[in-house]
Parts: sequence; C-alpha cells; structure tokens
Amino acid sequence: MVDIATRVYNHKWKIDPIVRSLIDTDFYKLLMCQSIFRNKPDTTVTFSLINRAKDVRLAELIDEGELREQLDYARGLRLTRGESTWLRGNTFYGKRQMFRPDFMEWFENFQLPPYHLEKRDGQYELTFEGKWPEVMMWEIPALAILMELRGRAVLNQMRRFELQVLYARAMARVWEKIEELRTIPGLKIADFGTRRRHGFLWQDWCVQAMIEGLGDAAKGGAFTGTSNCLIAMRRDLEAVGTNAHELPMVYAALARNDEELSQAPYKVLADWHEEHDGNLRIILPDTFGTKGFLEHAPDWLAGWTGIRIDSGDPVESAETAIAWWKSRGEDPRQKLVIFSDGLDVAEMKRLHGLFSGRVKVSFGWGTLLTNDFRGLVPHDALAPFSLVCKAVSADGHPTVKLSDNPSKATGPAEEIARYKRVFGVGAQQATQVIV
Amino acid sequence: MVDIATRVYNHKWKIDPIVRSLIDTDFYKLLMCQSIFRNKPDTTVTFSLINRAKDVRLAELIDEGELREQLDYARGLRLTRGESTWLRGNTFYGKRQMFRPDFMEWFENFQLPPYHLEKRDGQYELTFEGKWPEVMMWEIPALAILMELRGRAVLNQMRRFELQVLYARAMARVWEKIEELRTIPGLKIADFGTRRRHGFLWQDWCVQAMIEGLGDAAKGGAFTGTSNCLIAMRRDLEAVGTNAHELPMVYAALARNDEELSQAPYKVLADWHEEHDGNLRIILPDTFGTKGFLEHAPDWLAGWTGIRIDSGDPVESAETAIAWWKSRGEDPRQKLVIFSDGLDVAEMKRLHGLFSGRVKVSFGWGTLLTNDFRGLVPHDALAPFSLVCKAVSADGHPTVKLSDNPSKATGPAEEIARYKRVFGVGAQQATQVIV
Repeated sequence: MVDIATRVYNHKWKIDPIVRSLIDTDFYKLLMCQSIFRNKPDTTVTFSLINRAKDVRLAELIDEGELREQLDYARGLRLTRGESTWLRGNTFYGKRQMFRPDFMEWFENFQLPPYHLEKRDGQYELTFEGKWPEVMMWEIPALAILMELRGRAVLNQMRRFELQVLYARAMARVWEKIEELRTIPGLKIADFGTRRRHGFLWQDWCVQAMIEGLGDAAKGGAFTGTSNCLIAMRRDLEAVGTNAHELPMVYAALARNDEELSQAPYKVLADWHEEHDGNLRIILPDTFGTKGFLEHAPDWLAGWTGIRIDSGDPVESAETAIAWWKSRGEDPRQKLVIFSDGLDVAEMKRLHGLFSGRVKVSFGWGTLLTNDFRGLVPHDALAPFSLVCKAVSADGHPTVKLSDNPSKATGPAEEIARYKRVFGVGAQQATQVIV
Repeated sequence: MVDIATRVYNHKWKIDPIVRSLIDTDFYKLLMCQSIFRNKPDTTVTFSLINRAKDVRLAELIDEGELREQLDYARGLRLTRGESTWLRGNTFYGKRQMFRPDFMEWFENFQLPPYHLEKRDGQYELTFEGKWPEVMMWEIPALAILMELRGRAVLNQMRRFELQVLYARAMARVWEKIEELRTIPGLKIADFGTRRRHGFLWQDWCVQAMIEGLGDAAKGGAFTGTSNCLIAMRRDLEAVGTNAHELPMVYAALARNDEELSQAPYKVLADWHEEHDGNLRIILPDTFGTKGFLEHAPDWLAGWTGIRIDSGDPVESAETAIAWWKSRGEDPRQKLVIFSDGLDVAEMKRLHGLFSGRVKVSFGWGTLLTNDFRGLVPHDALAPFSLVCKAVSADGHPTVKLSDNPSKATGPAEEIARYKRVFGVGAQQATQVIV
C-alpha cells in the first residue's frame, strides 16, 4: 500500500515523472491505434489540447519548463519487455492475440512524436501533428500530465499534515461512494478515469478500493475492470474499452463529399466489425447526433452487442437506443448499455433503477471516481475541469464533433452547420459540461 | 510519515509489541516515581486494572495468550542508552537534572515487576503487587496494552481498504478538531492521551498533527507538549505532566488514624513542594473532594502555580478554585487552570470562553484526541471506554478515591463512607464517565 501523502510530499523535492509507461493509457487507444495502423496508417492528423474551462488559466498555474520536462520525459518512454509480453500474451475480452504481431513490432519501436507548445491568453496551445497512429497516442498522457501538473501546483503549497488529511478526506469520499454502490444489486462498473485523473497513484488507489469494495467481476463481483492498461496489468484486472469519437471524426473529415460524409460513421464501424466481435462491438453513436445515426444505421449494426452513451440526456439516449433495437427486431434485454458521461453515484443509481431489467446496464465511471477533489481545498483549486485532447484536422481538413450536447461541439462554425445538415441534427438541449 | 493502515495490516501476520520502551509512558509517572523512590520506597502497593465499562467484555475480546505475550514483552524492556541520556540531559520545565543521579541509576536497572492475571466474569483481573516505585510503572503500559489489544481484535477482522479508509476517516476527524481549535485565540493545549490511546503510532500521528496544526508552544504556537516521554523525545517536544491521584490515595491509605488521614493530601503536596517549583506546582484537588480540600488547605498551597481539574463539573470546580484564591489574597489571573477530564473541542471552546482572562487556561487533551474512533466501525467496537489502573491497596490497607464525581469513586463502601466523613464530602452530582 503506497502512502500517497508521503509520495506527493516527496514530489516537491525532485522531478517525478507523471507518465512512466507507454501503456499508462486507455485500452481503447491501443485498440484504435491497431485499427488505424491497419486502415489509415498514413493519414496526417493534428491532435490539440482544448481546455473547455476558460477560467482555469493553465499557463498561469503551470510552469512551462516543468510542462516541457514532463512531455519530454514521456517522449523518452519505450514499451518495456514486460509490457510487451503482457500485451502479446494476455487474453482481452476472451480473445488471445488481440494485438497482431505486425502491430506489436511497430509498437515495440514506438516513441511519442514531437509536440508543439505555445502560450496564448493564459492557456497552453499544445498540438501534435503527424501520422495518425503516432499522434493519437499523445491524447491520454497529455491530458494526464496537464491535469496532474495543475494539481501539483496546488499541492506544492500545502504542508505535510494538510496533505495527509487531504488524501484522508478524498479516500473517505471514494469509499463512501463505493459503499453506496454496493447497495445496487447486479451492478456492473468499470474505471474509465485515466484521462482526467488526479494522478497515477491516486487512480491506482481508487482501482484497488473498487476491487476490495465491489469485487473483481472475474470472481463474481461488480467491478468489471479498468481502462488503464498499466493498472490492469499490475492489478491483474481486465483492461476495458472499445473505441472513441476520433475514429468517426477523422473518417468524416476525410470524406470527399456529403454522401461520403454521411456514410463515414458507418464505415468506421464496418472496419471495426471486420476486426472485432462480442463485447468489443459497442456502438458510440453520438459523434454527429445519436438519433440520426441510429435511424440511418445499416441493419447489421443492430446485431452489435451494445451501445455507449457519452453525451446528452442519458435517459433519452438510452430510450432512443431501446426503441431502435425494437424497431430492428432485436431484444433490448440482450443488449448492453454503457453509460459513461460525467457519472457519479446518485446518477448511476438513478440510471440503474430506470434501465436494469430492460437492458444490460453497465457504467464507465471516470473523473468523479479518479478526481473528485471538489471542495477539499480553498477556491476549489483541485476540482476537476473539462480538458480534452481531440483530433482537430485530418489531411488538412478540419474535424467536427457535434455530440448530443451542443456545449461539447467542436470544429469551425461553417463545418458544424454542414455536418448538422448532412446528419439531420435539429435543435439540441445544452447541458453543462462538468468533467 | 508512517503509513498507519499498512502497519496495522502487517500486525496481523506477526507479533508486534504494543509497548516498546519504558519511557513510552506518561511523564508524571517518572516524576512521581522519583518522589516515591525518595519518600516511600518500601511501601507495598497493589495496582489493579479496572474496567468501568462492564459491557466491554475484555476477556472475550482479547486472547489471554496474546495478552500475556504483550505483558511479558513489556517486562523484558530496559531503559536504552539514548533514553537515559535524554532523561539525564534534558531540561524539563526549565530545570536541568530533573532526575537525580540515584534515581537514574535505579531506573537504568529497572524492569517491570511480575503481574498476576486471571479471568473472571468476562473480564481480566490484572494486578501488580510489590514495591510502590516498581508496580506503579505498570499503569500506563498495562492500559495501553489492553486498549490496543481490544482494538486489534476488531482491526484483525477488517480488510486492507477498510483499514485505510478507517484511518483516513479518523485522520480527517482529528484534523477537523485541530482546525476548530485554531479558532481559539491564546489557546494552550497538551496531549494527555497516552493511557487510553488507540495505539502508539496513532498517538504519534495525532501529536504530529497538533504540531503542524497548532504549532509548538516553544515557537509561539498553542501546543505545549505531550505527556508521552518517548514521543516528546522523538518529536523534540516538551514532556508535560505533574502528579496524579495515586499519591494522595496511597498516603491516605497509610494514615494511622482519621487525623493523619485528613492531613494526608497536604502531606503529599508538602513533599512535592520540597522537590519542585514553578509549573510543576499544580494542585490536583479532587481525590477526596475539591471543595473540602481547598477549604482546609494550608496557606502556602495558595501560592502554587495552578490547579488541575479532573472530575466533576469543571465550571463549578474552576469557580471554586477562583473563589479560594481570592479568599487567600491571590490574583487568579496569575494562576493556571488545567482542565483534563474527558475533553473534546466543544467543551474546550466553552471553558476557554468562560475562563480566559480570568485565569490562565490550559487543556490536557486525552482520549478524544488519541482514540476518537467513535462511530467508525459497526457496533462502535473501536470506541474508547473507561479503563483505569489504580492503586487499590498500600501496606495491606485499601485505598479510596472519591473525586468530584461519585461514578468515579473507588474503594470498599465502609472506607468510602469514612473518607466522606473525614473530608466532609456531602451530596455529589453524578456525571456519566465517557472516557
């Protein structure tokens, strides 16, 4: 058991790398990377860090030298022998050799590509431009580094016992949440909290608390695993995750006309369909609006295992999915619905109560598991905030994301308008983005 | 910083001594021991463990073998070279060579005398019979061992994260108390929590939290020190404490008639007066009733530095002392009043508000600093309870304690009646004994 408070205290006195492993990243990045490595290896993509919380002035909180030090350190990482062995030899979602030998060879020689960093208006402009399978690997480490450096800036001002008590309070809070989750019969829940975690050690603690509190699903418990590959490896857990918005966003940006654009999201899933089956066949329908996506979806998609709901009103989205399955002759009770948008315990209880029995309910619990430091320091300076790292262009074309919440839309205004037209997205309800 | 949860977890797997040093005891035991060593070295005294909380069935909770193992381990302890150096070389209450060479030589060869242990009615009867300066040294280790073994019996049933969260909650609670104490201007407070602490590491943590939260009084802070000699030595703090009820209780038991009995409490303080001055001249007036004690006290006692209030209604007792000082021509504003009975933060705030400015107020905070695990586990199985270890006889005569709370009275009924008559104690208000 690591004494986190001591460790954080020690960080004050020497450089301490935030990201220490190439697999300290979300499992779905590796799955997507392999898919991109096969299907679009030469597409040039730019990833960019976007801080949706303008009041959190990162460039004033975080020293540029420290930021560069951490980014440079991450660039020096290589896949270790043990990590490679684990990826090659492990069973993921019941499948051996999930990662093909050609991909593993490439990954064993991989290093994170160069970054471009500038300060503007109190924020950092951090971008990664290059071949898609390379630059996309920056997403999680970049987010984790920025989020943790901002936390360290606050922690550096705190004394020993303040630190210990801070973590004591945060631990008690996580544990209370877990105790509350234990009251939900038939719960299935995974850790999705890598990207905006408080820190690696903290995420690792939270995962261990979930194991003890809820039990590993492999042994009949409610905890189905973690999206973090390094923690999954070390804690002998299932690494979980499937795919994300970047696939349809880039595929859509590469479309040469409106007709190709309208088909791009389905092309992504057709490629995925070829590669994966079972629990990896999870639809992420909201990139350009859930409703239109499902209405125009090919029939074979209704045969997929489930859906992940990541924006908009989760009840409305789940009901839309249920109605869609029924309209395609599928039994929703056999389908998996994974909720993953800004969840906390009360919301999970509510959603479980509404949908348990009607579908197979599962939760991907993110930031409010691994970074709920709200209210624990003055000025709420450790509260999580909405930081993302997105593909912003592909082969020179801007990407667009609409999602089911206009507050989460990204891309140039004229392109957003075009996408809305092509995908038939009407008025949307704006929801505050918490994390 | 010690990771307490890990340490406690480790305790499950091997024997771990609860008392590891002869100076892991209260400072006043050493002061009194030296006084007894000089004045009453050959008096035969029996100390006995008394559990006032009959519902805590110690003999059912604690394994007799483990108890004997811990007691035997304590018997094997000898003063170490470093401890001896600290006692010989340190300045206590501004005085060098507080401990005289003849006493130090005796103490360097000291070991705890044999114990007698039996089970009866779900309780342990644990007694120590022998020469007073030897058996009296059992008090604190015996209490600490029983209290901690009872805690371990509960902790042994808990899993890793339950343990970590338990300590996280307890830490947050202590820190909240300290934060509250910081709002009291001019506060002076010491740790008196050795005897009924949760455990040594926990007491040590609490003391460090007090240092960081309140500041060491030697550097202008509110924390005046700890009664625990080992922690004082290791944390470079003032060791604090003066004397306790055992002195008047034994002196009284040795009295050959009622006249000698009535003078016994003053004889104790006359012997003390010869040995000590300044802040060590603190009256503990409640052994046979505060009111009568002060009324009949010789004038020279009014010149002492202050008073310690350890039973009964603290406001009433402090008012009695103030009135008494005034009646003897003393200025109460120059006098120290040390409250030490079952204190917690709200009570300290109240007492400080009532007496600050009228006297010099100081607090000896005990069990609710070092063992407030109330409500943290099912059935409140870690809540502190009222365990004491008292002199029950001296040279064959039973001892008596009346105090200002009849719930705390000890001794045979006919002797209690005699003492009440001799010391003129009338009706008393019973108060629930919490700790």
